[in-house]
Amino acid sequence: MNFFAQYALYERMINEALAALPWGEDRLCRCMTYSLLDGGKRLRPVLALAAAALTGGSPAAIVVPACGLELIHTYSLIHDDLPCMDDDDTRRGRPASHIVFGEAAAVLTGDALLTLGLELVARPPAGIPLERSLQAVALVTAAAGWRGMVGGQMLDTDEPPARPDLAWLEHMQSLKTGALFVAAAELGAVLAGAAAGELEALRAYARALGAAFQIKDDILDVEGESAVLGKPAGSDAKGAKPTYPAVLGLKAAKAALGRKTEAAAAALAGWGEKGEFLRALAAWAAEREK
Amino acid sequence: MNFFAQYALYERMINEALAALPWGEDRLCRCMTYSLLDGGKRLRPVLALAAAALTGGSPAAIVVPACGLELIHTYSLIHDDLPCMDDDDTRRGRPASHIVFGEAAAVLTGDALLTLGLELVARPPAGIPLERSLQAVALVTAAAGWRGMVGGQMLDTDEPPARPDLAWLEHMQSLKTGALFVAAAELGAVLAGAAAGELEALRAYARALGAAFQIKDDILDVEGESAVLGKPAGSDAKGAKPTYPAVLGLKAAKAALGRKTEAAAAALAGWGEKGEFLRALAAWAAEREK
Repeated sequence: MNFFAQYALYERMINEALAALPWGEDRLCRCMTYSLLDGGKRLRPVLALAAAALTGGSPAAIVVPACGLELIHTYSLIHDDLPCMDDDDTRRGRPASHIVFGEAAAVLTGDALLTLGLELVARPPAGIPLERSLQAVALVTAAAGWRGMVGGQMLDTDEPPARPDLAWLEHMQSLKTGALFVAAAELGAVLAGAAAGELEALRAYARALGAAFQIKDDILDVEGESAVLGKPAGSDAKGAKPTYPAVLGLKAAKAALGRKTEAAAAALAGWGEKGEFLRALAAWAAEREK
Repeated sequence: MNFFAQYALYERMINEALAALPWGEDRLCRCMTYSLLDGGKRLRPVLALAAAALTGGSPAAIVVPACGLELIHTYSLIHDDLPCMDDDDTRRGRPASHIVFGEAAAVLTGDALLTLGLELVARPPAGIPLERSLQAVALVTAAAGWRGMVGGQMLDTDEPPARPDLAWLEHMQSLKTGALFVAAAELGAVLAGAAAGELEALRAYARALGAAFQIKDDILDVEGESAVLGKPAGSDAKGAKPTYPAVLGLKAAKAALGRKTEAAAAALAGWGEKGEFLRALAAWAAEREK
């Protein structure tokens, strides 16, 4: 199966599992589904499913805990978009949660998605030893929390340096976006019972993929078109956000993107042909137009 | 040991475990410890330790997961105090998190405390079967999330009815504050390996305790003194919040408090003398002055 067909298959499994959660008709559920079921890329759960497949596990068996990652990612977007944070009005081509439902509801929607996301991560899949689910909770909470995603957002939002350099930017991004990519690969591999060496290689891959993804995001914000992106292009420069193009210049940012994509592929070398999907995923992350 | 000595012992165990978490010197850690290590009552983890003791477990063994409840409670206070929510400037006698650190930091501090809180709940205590820790995560996430605490806060903050009646108020409070009380008792009992009947009795106890605690909070807001409360008295009436005194009148609210305290004691009947600490806890919840 080629890359896009495989991606679409994983995406359908994920979207079906997300839609099958026991949503109600109340306002909180409407807020949660507005942001969650809006057609994001599902990159983090896809990465988890692919990591499980690569290390001998069954993607279908772990789709629920993998979906937990998407809830956690979505919560982080909702809170990042708040007026007191990045103050973004548009997300994935539609008005942001706080624009549609108000700030209080957006804060609570994020809280609810984070809590439910971790509940899903902790739900033990049939036939998989329970200690693997506890490991999954430990690694996802570590990646999402104070020393991971929230810590990175704190660096980025609360008191960014006046003149961020590359070291600061890489550190911030490794926390803010990188940690959850790594956790996604780890979650799939851990639930599949991967060997320590496989886990280490997948971590290296996901670190490089996460960096490539972020650099490309920053480049698209400079070069992309708002209509394709689903959010206003140029918004980083407007907010004077520290980005790879801002710190390195556009040309050097593109070179860095190439190096990260190569590093991602190199981490997969041990798998040979079997690593093709994840290799193509890294190439796609670097070439995509939105 | 009398009630207050036992409470102080539990409280010291909890405060020591909270202080022993690997706090750093960074700004996010300062925000987290400002709100967490400020001398709250530690009621939820105390309840968990007492439930474990009552059902044959070791309180010392489960102090870390019990502390997770305090982090989750603290996150909920920080988010509730935000300008877009209850807009409270004072908490536990000190400026609220968003006043000291700003709104963005307060949102992220809450996010970090929730994430770390669930990480602690999931940390398997030595000698306790792993499936009990997964059960603990399941019950705490259910109590804290969309169909529990966050759902209750959504009802209370986002679109409260113009004229709330008692049924609405009891429903909202059972979610907003009751669910985490019940989860605390369950967490202690589940980790201790309690029998189903014990678990059911402790749930009934915690439901009544949580209701009594909330009714007393509402009464104190009418009758208490700001200096003793550590927050402005009368703040509920100022914000036209739906409370038991507002809905029932003060006299009927006090009668309801008495009934809830009796219900809590009744749920403990099967334990006889052994239930004394939790019986005294419910009596204290009804009689306290802050």
